[in-house]
Amino acid sequence: MEKILIVKGNILFTKTLDKLTVYKDSYIVVKDSIVEAIYKVLPQKYMNYQIKDYKEKLIIPSFVDLHLHAAQFLQCGMGMTKQLLDWLNDYTFDLEKEFKNEEFAKEVYTKFADKLIASGTLRACIFASSSTAGTEILFEILKAKGIGAYIGKVNMDSNAPDFILESTEDSIDGTRYLIEKYKDEPLVKPIITPRFAPTSTNKLLKELGSLAKEYALPVQSHLNENLDEIRWVQELFPNAENYLDVYNDNSLFGQTPTILAHGVYLSDDETEIIKRNNVILVHCPDSNINVRSGIMPLRKYLNLGLKIGLGSDIAGGHKIALNEAMVRAIQLSKLLSLSNPEYTPLTVSEVFYLATKGGGEFFGKVGSFEEGYFFDALVIEDDSLTADRYSLEDRLERFIYIGDDRNIIARYVEGNKIT
Amino acid sequence: MEKILIVKGNILFTKTLDKLTVYKDSYIVVKDSIVEAIYKVLPQKYMNYQIKDYKEKLIIPSFVDLHLHAAQFLQCGMGMTKQLLDWLNDYTFDLEKEFKNEEFAKEVYTKFADKLIASGTLRACIFASSSTAGTEILFEILKAKGIGAYIGKVNMDSNAPDFILESTEDSIDGTRYLIEKYKDEPLVKPIITPRFAPTSTNKLLKELGSLAKEYALPVQSHLNENLDEIRWVQELFPNAENYLDVYNDNSLFGQTPTILAHGVYLSDDETEIIKRNNVILVHCPDSNINVRSGIMPLRKYLNLGLKIGLGSDIAGGHKIALNEAMVRAIQLSKLLSLSNPEYTPLTVSEVFYLATKGGGEFFGKVGSFEEGYFFDALVIEDDSLTADRYSLEDRLERFIYIGDDRNIIARYVEGNKIT
Repeated sequence: MEKILIVKGNILFTKTLDKLTVYKDSYIVVKDSIVEAIYKVLPQKYMNYQIKDYKEKLIIPSFVDLHLHAAQFLQCGMGMTKQLLDWLNDYTFDLEKEFKNEEFAKEVYTKFADKLIASGTLRACIFASSSTAGTEILFEILKAKGIGAYIGKVNMDSNAPDFILESTEDSIDGTRYLIEKYKDEPLVKPIITPRFAPTSTNKLLKELGSLAKEYALPVQSHLNENLDEIRWVQELFPNAENYLDVYNDNSLFGQTPTILAHGVYLSDDETEIIKRNNVILVHCPDSNINVRSGIMPLRKYLNLGLKIGLGSDIAGGHKIALNEAMVRAIQLSKLLSLSNPEYTPLTVSEVFYLATKGGGEFFGKVGSFEEGYFFDALVIEDDSLTADRYSLEDRLERFIYIGDDRNIIARYVEGNKIT
Repeated sequence: MEKILIVKGNILFTKTLDKLTVYKDSYIVVKDSIVEAIYKVLPQKYMNYQIKDYKEKLIIPSFVDLHLHAAQFLQCGMGMTKQLLDWLNDYTFDLEKEFKNEEFAKEVYTKFADKLIASGTLRACIFASSSTAGTEILFEILKAKGIGAYIGKVNMDSNAPDFILESTEDSIDGTRYLIEKYKDEPLVKPIITPRFAPTSTNKLLKELGSLAKEYALPVQSHLNENLDEIRWVQELFPNAENYLDVYNDNSLFGQTPTILAHGVYLSDDETEIIKRNNVILVHCPDSNINVRSGIMPLRKYLNLGLKIGLGSDIAGGHKIALNEAMVRAIQLSKLLSLSNPEYTPLTVSEVFYLATKGGGEFFGKVGSFEEGYFFDALVIEDDSLTADRYSLEDRLERFIYIGDDRNIIARYVEGNKIT
């Protein structure tokens, strides 16, 4: 039998980048986890169903974070004034190695998942650590919580401290084990995850490309985050034409969907290849400032028609809440517009789109309330004092700018209320 | 009889910009609201006093916000992608006029005060609105809450909508009324507050300069926030050599302490005069990005020895919590360093100093735990999982980057626990 869910409230979402779609005091009818339609007046045939009435509250698509490191959760906001290599060695690698300890992994990943969900991110593309056992624990925790995620065991076999490296063979075996175990899960799925070009041998990259093809799995990694890193990649892979070419050489995009974080600095060639192959770029504004990478020319990429999502990139980024990334994306676009007036600042509608439907595309019909989309939603309670005074668009903007997990009073994934 | 307060915990503060002073598991002895000393081992003579033991928690000076607009509290995070004039007309002025309504003023200012205090700001320099009655309500509310503040009725008699302007005479009379009523208060005091040069006639500015002198009161206003504004000031005051000169001509600094917000763009002449007159500049990083002003060259000003504090500048800034301003100050300084390598990024110690002892200087001995300072303090509870793993400095940084009012479990002003 069909399962019907009807929720009522002030509904906001984005069909396109440029405009919020707004339904005041309206009904969303969800059939078997999928949005059937939105009604201003509920049709007669639904009159006998129970209605979940959220009254004056806002109902919006939940957030999709396309890039974050679960194993770095504890170090959010620490070592932020260190240089990149010190930060990696003193904080990141030192912490990531602990996830071999299953007790520790369970405790930290549970905290991570709770905060992620509390903050409204109900779909995410996640880097775990290089530990297979630790990554398995993250799969189990997110599966139990009921959110959607692609989770990657981090593959790395060179150019990092021994204590977090694996042999090429172990890295591939562990990855295959997790793929076999989780490939048929409905919500929590594996993704091929080379950390980034410099910490992988060509052999590892090649085998990961083969795995992606063999299991028809998506891929995630990092690309062109900062200038030192780009130079390093050139040294390590002298035969590659550019950074992107390293991934291209190893069939890490083009055959299945691929997400590449950052892309702060892209050559015209790289931009063209990214566009042609439908690679999704992830803009991680806080991370880009915290580690002094620079400002991604987001407006330029959008004008070129690249596919883009948002990422908190914890713990390069310090805040796991994706509305913070939306705000910082607007702020950085304003700064860039001061020196490059042709790159107009992002609007609220645009960053909201990136954080919902833009990133959601990677998960299928996710991130909108259009007919046929999964009902993934947040219910937002804001200041009652402002409810009469301001428009629904203003109230959404206010939530994005100053709201936090306390303002989110209900969360749905595929029509199921998870908290 | 002497009143003695003894608190124990992990104590962090800044004596100077460049370095955190840290006492692990130590005691602060407060005599009659003033820090007497910090002890690693408590002297015998204090053994019979009760000790407030905060165990592994952090004890830090509370925050000092040198620039914010209480009457804009409700609009935090709204209209952020509007151009400045639309933002002022559609949001700011329209809201500020409501503070003539005493019921409304009471409701909003109470919410404002509660959030300000919750967020750890226990001293602030505040712009109210042009309403004398509304400003009086703000005085009463903050007095009752027990925090320290300079509060200014906003003086403006030109170049804004009629509904928030007053005649020069009414503006001066209302200001004098509030001064007479509150000048002898211990914690909540009046401050002369011309909104900024463009919304004041020369006559109003001159009379405000006289009032400041007559009552020996400090002054606060805005300066050189963005390029359009600077041009407008030049048009309105053609005889002034520069923006700062308008205030100079009317004795609005030099005779008593003065705070000027922003100063994103200062000429060498202005910088020199600011330094010579001990004018305090307020860096408001979120506001400067949100309204597209630009990045203040904070490192340059610090190198020149200017006095600087931090401001949330709500609602140009969207977050009232001053730790957010600390983070954004670091982030903007990193961005500036990418194009100007001679301006090295700010450190955690430096922004913490600006938000405590730097701004605190305006209130006397405030913002440090050195001997003779008022005991204004916050007690911070952070993630117990990190307590063993990270240093006290790291934990403070983490609170600054990702903490919020939920992490602050006690607040002291002049030795009194206020919440």
